[in-house]
Amino acid sequence: MPTPEPAGRSGYTVAVVGATGLVGGEMVRLLDARRFPVAALRLFATARSAGRTLPFRGRDVTVAETSEAALAACDLVLFAGGDDASRRFAWSAAAAGAVVVDNSSTWRQDPRVPLVVPEVNGHALARHQGVIANPNCCAAALVMALAPLQRAVGLRRVVVSTYQSASGGGADTLRRLLDETRALLQDPDALVRGDSERIAALAGDRDPLAFNVRPQWRWGPDGMTEEEAKVVAETRKILEVDLPVSVTTVRVPVLVGHTLVVHADLAQPLTAEAARRLFAAAPGVAVEDAPEEDRYPTPLRAAGRDPVLVGRIRRVPGDEPALTFVVASDNLRKGAALNAIQIAEALVARGHLRPRSTPARAPGA
Amino acid sequence: MPTPEPAGRSGYTVAVVGATGLVGGEMVRLLDARRFPVAALRLFATARSAGRTLPFRGRDVTVAETSEAALAACDLVLFAGGDDASRRFAWSAAAAGAVVVDNSSTWRQDPRVPLVVPEVNGHALARHQGVIANPNCCAAALVMALAPLQRAVGLRRVVVSTYQSASGGGADTLRRLLDETRALLQDPDALVRGDSERIAALAGDRDPLAFNVRPQWRWGPDGMTEEEAKVVAETRKILEVDLPVSVTTVRVPVLVGHTLVVHADLAQPLTAEAARRLFAAAPGVAVEDAPEEDRYPTPLRAAGRDPVLVGRIRRVPGDEPALTFVVASDNLRKGAALNAIQIAEALVARGHLRPRSTPARAPGA
Repeated sequence: MPTPEPAGRSGYTVAVVGATGLVGGEMVRLLDARRFPVAALRLFATARSAGRTLPFRGRDVTVAETSEAALAACDLVLFAGGDDASRRFAWSAAAAGAVVVDNSSTWRQDPRVPLVVPEVNGHALARHQGVIANPNCCAAALVMALAPLQRAVGLRRVVVSTYQSASGGGADTLRRLLDETRALLQDPDALVRGDSERIAALAGDRDPLAFNVRPQWRWGPDGMTEEEAKVVAETRKILEVDLPVSVTTVRVPVLVGHTLVVHADLAQPLTAEAARRLFAAAPGVAVEDAPEEDRYPTPLRAAGRDPVLVGRIRRVPGDEPALTFVVASDNLRKGAALNAIQIAEALVARGHLRPRSTPARAPGA
Repeated sequence: MPTPEPAGRSGYTVAVVGATGLVGGEMVRLLDARRFPVAALRLFATARSAGRTLPFRGRDVTVAETSEAALAACDLVLFAGGDDASRRFAWSAAAAGAVVVDNSSTWRQDPRVPLVVPEVNGHALARHQGVIANPNCCAAALVMALAPLQRAVGLRRVVVSTYQSASGGGADTLRRLLDETRALLQDPDALVRGDSERIAALAGDRDPLAFNVRPQWRWGPDGMTEEEAKVVAETRKILEVDLPVSVTTVRVPVLVGHTLVVHADLAQPLTAEAARRLFAAAPGVAVEDAPEEDRYPTPLRAAGRDPVLVGRIRRVPGDEPALTFVVASDNLRKGAALNAIQIAEALVARGHLRPRSTPARAPGA
């Protein structure tokens, strides 16, 4: 019996930087689930998390501290960590010959860097210079829904409100939501009365996320949050149109799954039924739009699934040509890890990724 | 020492129908807190709740089953119950000489019935024929924020997304959210994985409200929910303009406090600073808009308070003249009970409410 090898000798040496985070963990799971040709998997994180292990294809892979030298030996480097790691290591890894897919926001607006959602602008991969950016979790879902409309009739303006889950803020935000929820359940009446002292005492915060809605992020330019500025700029870059986009980003007490309410001004009229057909035909989009049968997008229905759900598709009486609809997607999948792996798959399919070093035995895996 | 009388002999005989519900209870508390001239308070509900008592000004008032005869003896009848009670009893109470303020949706679009937010269209009270409608909880908050803009520069179109709390669905929905939250906290990982079978088993519903977002209501015309159709029609009626309004109503896991994200196309440009001044000068509106000091509207900050909070006020780059902002208000107060009491206060101030029977001793109170 031969010793089972992770992906045979024909695969790639793949690194995940930030492997111990929510997105990094999802990347590792998806590399396996989607049978990405991994010859060797190398996992990296900050010194604090080094030494931990993650299972991959039946073996435990030890997490090492990120270093320029270690990344230089990889064919494909997926950055799932924060801006710091990407700023320090992305271009040196690319210079050493790796192709980098970066989930941080650091390089997304860099003119050298394609910002890619494969179903929407996979062609942009052709111009990559070693670093490819993965979009913001809301921007990814938004362009998946806007692209079919843009192609069919053209867009004039888009107004978006988001309902973003705690996991978008990382594992700490997720844990904080659960802790706050448990604490506030001790005295729900304080929430009904709006007793801010009692709420602060229980939750440890005057503005908890539990049982609340927060239109708040780090603050950016023009009265926008940084998150809003990202969604505006990234939507334009991916769709390659100078589209006015008004977006309000709001965190809600949900664990996984981002929801968007979208109002799109179209260049030409489109019936709801025609829009439904366009969405249904778009790869990666699933129409959930039969209200009378209780089918509509929710974050819980999107969680753990690949497709971006679109529903509640309707025209606005007295306001044609415009269309309103609701989008929900798993922010850890299409909003992050899945899209990054899909970029890697597209690189393989287009011949942009070639193994440089194929070790006889996968050292990390 | 004289026996303390509720409001002396100069007040009114006031009835609250649906007194045992969330909105009815808030009405009773506000009648006291705002020192409404109550000579006698009569509380009514369905047969199921009759016999319960509610405290009012230091005494317990017993809830009776609603009847035409009992309401006929009242000066002011506040309906806080569902559509059934209002449909059966509103006009007969008015015919008997009472003035009715109805929080149900039954008569809001009836041409005989003014639909009133006192700060916005108090003048409409002049044409009342005995029944005055209190608006939908979202419509009330929305027109409070839109009216200053409409008066100053005019509105062309409004796009709204709502983040509505469980209390808007009544005490049962509130309780259900708490029960679902407790159940799902037993296995948060099921939510992260999107394990719908496990979620359904724990919460008793495939589409719980806890840790979820539901763009769902009873379904109405044109692909809208009934809630959306109400907000559109009521906003137009109160503002007295034929304004295109696109609204998507969404329930979120919050106990009290509705939040709205509003994108308003204006007839003339307006800076964010000028809009801030207009909102600050509007009675019943409080500006919470200093993001760098962590001041912005949230439902928890609005809960238990009278003012409608407005913040995150900003212009949309490339999309002038338009303005985006966030509104939060206590849906049980300005969205329901407070506005109803304010209508009653306006009726008193305008001389529309006169006591017909002033008992020597307040029988119910």
